[in-house]
Amino acid sequence: MGDTGRFGERLAVLAHDWFPEEGKMMKGVMRYGDYAFTGIVDHRHAGESSADYLPGLPDVPIFARVEDVPRETDSLLIAERPDDGILTPLQRAEIEAALAGGWDVLSGLHRRLSDDPQFATAAAESDATIHELRHPPDEVTIAEGTAGAVDARVVLTAGTDCRQGKMTTTMELVAAVRERGIDAGALATGQTGIAITGSGVCIDRTPADFTAGAVERLVHEAADEHDLVVVEGQASILHPAYAADTIALLHGAMPDGLVLCHHATRTAFRGWERFELPSIEQFLAAYRAVTDPICPTTVVGGSLNTIGIEDDEAARDAVEAFSREIDAPATDVIRFGAGALVEAIV
Amino acid sequence: MGDTGRFGERLAVLAHDWFPEEGKMMKGVMRYGDYAFTGIVDHRHAGESSADYLPGLPDVPIFARVEDVPRETDSLLIAERPDDGILTPLQRAEIEAALAGGWDVLSGLHRRLSDDPQFATAAAESDATIHELRHPPDEVTIAEGTAGAVDARVVLTAGTDCRQGKMTTTMELVAAVRERGIDAGALATGQTGIAITGSGVCIDRTPADFTAGAVERLVHEAADEHDLVVVEGQASILHPAYAADTIALLHGAMPDGLVLCHHATRTAFRGWERFELPSIEQFLAAYRAVTDPICPTTVVGGSLNTIGIEDDEAARDAVEAFSREIDAPATDVIRFGAGALVEAIV
Repeated sequence: MGDTGRFGERLAVLAHDWFPEEGKMMKGVMRYGDYAFTGIVDHRHAGESSADYLPGLPDVPIFARVEDVPRETDSLLIAERPDDGILTPLQRAEIEAALAGGWDVLSGLHRRLSDDPQFATAAAESDATIHELRHPPDEVTIAEGTAGAVDARVVLTAGTDCRQGKMTTTMELVAAVRERGIDAGALATGQTGIAITGSGVCIDRTPADFTAGAVERLVHEAADEHDLVVVEGQASILHPAYAADTIALLHGAMPDGLVLCHHATRTAFRGWERFELPSIEQFLAAYRAVTDPICPTTVVGGSLNTIGIEDDEAARDAVEAFSREIDAPATDVIRFGAGALVEAIV
Repeated sequence: MGDTGRFGERLAVLAHDWFPEEGKMMKGVMRYGDYAFTGIVDHRHAGESSADYLPGLPDVPIFARVEDVPRETDSLLIAERPDDGILTPLQRAEIEAALAGGWDVLSGLHRRLSDDPQFATAAAESDATIHELRHPPDEVTIAEGTAGAVDARVVLTAGTDCRQGKMTTTMELVAAVRERGIDAGALATGQTGIAITGSGVCIDRTPADFTAGAVERLVHEAADEHDLVVVEGQASILHPAYAADTIALLHGAMPDGLVLCHHATRTAFRGWERFELPSIEQFLAAYRAVTDPICPTTVVGGSLNTIGIEDDEAARDAVEAFSREIDAPATDVIRFGAGALVEAIV
C-alpha cells in the first residue's frame, strides 16, 4: 500500500517481552503492510507460530534471537514504542546485531536510535540505515494553503479522541475503495502508518509551525499519484493535549470530506479522564468552526469503534445512532467492513 | 519584567545592515526589556545615537564594531531574524568576537548558532553561552489539562492573524495592570518576548505534541509567582499555516479570558493574501467552539492595531466599532493606552 520499497520487502519484527499482548506497531504493520515477514523475535515464544496468538494476521515463525532469523531479511521493525522509551538490554543487543548484519531498522521510538553511539557505530560499519519513523525530515516547509486545489479527492479521518481507530479506518477505507477499482492512496501521519505505507510524516513530532506545511506537501505528492487520498488523522480538535496535530491536519490537507472516528463506549478522553468527552454535536461544531471560514468541509461518513459492545445487534444499533447524529453513513470498519462508506467518500 | 537576570543586565545589540528599519527583536527588547543597553553595533551609523532613528526607545550609542562596545557587556542580542536565516560575513565575525570576549549571545534564528562549529568553538573556549531563543528546551512534557486550576487569573492575547501586536499587547497590559499595583507577569511564547522577560518557550518551534504541555508548565510557574498572568498569544485559530500554535496555547493555558487582537485595516491573512480574513464573528465562533467543551473562556477585551488609520478620530471610531463587535471593551494599546482594558482583565 504505497512505497514500501523504501524499507525493503522482507521484514523481521523485534518483539522480545512484548509479544503477543503489546506490539501496536507490529500488529498494524502485519495487518496492513505489503511485506513478507521473515520472523518474529521473542525468546519467550521461540519455536511457536504467531497465528496461534494473533488470529487474522499473517502466520510468521517465532525465533529466539535475531541471529536465528533467515538472513535474507531487509529490515528489523521494532514492534512497540514503550512510553518510557527504554529498551531492555536484550532488545538493545538484538538491534545492534541486526544493524551489524546489514539490516535496516525501523524505529518508532521517541528518542533517536541514531543518537546512541552504539547503534550509530553499528549502522555506519555495515552501511545500514536507521529509519526514525517518529521524527520529521530535516527539510520542512510552511503551509501555503494550497491543498484545497489538488487534482484528487481528499478525505481526512478526523476523530473525537486518540486511539480509537483512525489509522485502521484509513487503511480499511483505502482497501475498500481500491476493491471498487478506484485508485486510492493512504497518507500516513503516524509511525505505524509510515511503516505500512513507506512514506508520510509523524505530525506529532513536527515543530508546530511546520505541521500544516508537512501535511500539505504530502497531500500534493499523494494527489499526483492517486485519484483519492485518505489522510490519516491524529487526536481530536478538542483533545486537551494534542489538538495542535488535528488543526494542522485540517488546514494542511484542506480535505473535501471528513470521516468522523469515534469510540462507542468511551465517555472521557483516554488518559485524560478528568475531561468528559464532549458531545458529537460539540465535535461537529468545532470541526466546522475551524474549517468553514478558510477551507469548508463536511462530515461525509462515520467510523464507530464498537469493540466494547459484545452483541452484534447492539453494535449495529450504536452505528445507526451514530449515523443519525452525524447525518451521514457510518460503520464499524472492522466489525461490519468499510463498504458502507465507499459511496460517501469517493 | 521577569527573570532578565538569565541573560545578564547589560545588553549590546548586533544590528549591522539592519538598523534602523529592520531589527524587530531589537525594537521589542529596547521597548520592553529591563536591560541597560551598552551599545548598538552598526557600521553604517557608527558615532550616531539611536534615539534619532528610534524615537520613544532608550537612547543608545552606536558603534562600528563589537570591539568598540564597552567591555562590561553581558550579552549580545542579534537584532533580527532574517527569513532566509543567513548572516553576512561581518555579522558572523561580530558574533564570534562577542563569544570570544566571553559575552553570551541571544539568537532568535531558526538555525542553531551552536550547530555552527565556528560559534560552538568560540563559545566553548571562553565559557560563553549561546541562548537559542527559538528552540524549545530538550525537556518537554505532555499537557495534563491542569492550567485551568491555577491560583492566578490567566488572560491570553488571542488574535485574528500574525504580526498584529499580540506581544506588544501582552507587555502593555502587564505594565498597565502593574501601575494599578497588581502583581502581573507576562508569559512569553515567542523569541522577542523571551528576550524581554528572560523566560518562556518558543511555541512555534516546539514539536506539536508538546506545545500545549510547554504552555501549561509555564502557566503553573507564572501562576506561582503572580496574581495575574498575561500569556502572549501566537498566530490565529483560523490561520492557514499556524493555527496549531494557537490551539495549543488555548488548551495549554486554559485562560480565564481572551483579549482579541486585530489589525484594523487588514483584509486578508498577511502573506496568505489568497485567504480573505474571516469576520470577527467567525473568529469568535472558532475560539468558542474549541474551548467551550473543555475549557470555557470568553473574550473580555479587544486590542485593535490602528496603525493604518491616520486620523485619531477615525481610529477611535474603529476601536468603538470593534468593541461593539466583540461585546467587550477595546483600545489601541499604543495609540490610546492599555488602560481601557485593565478593569476587564483583572
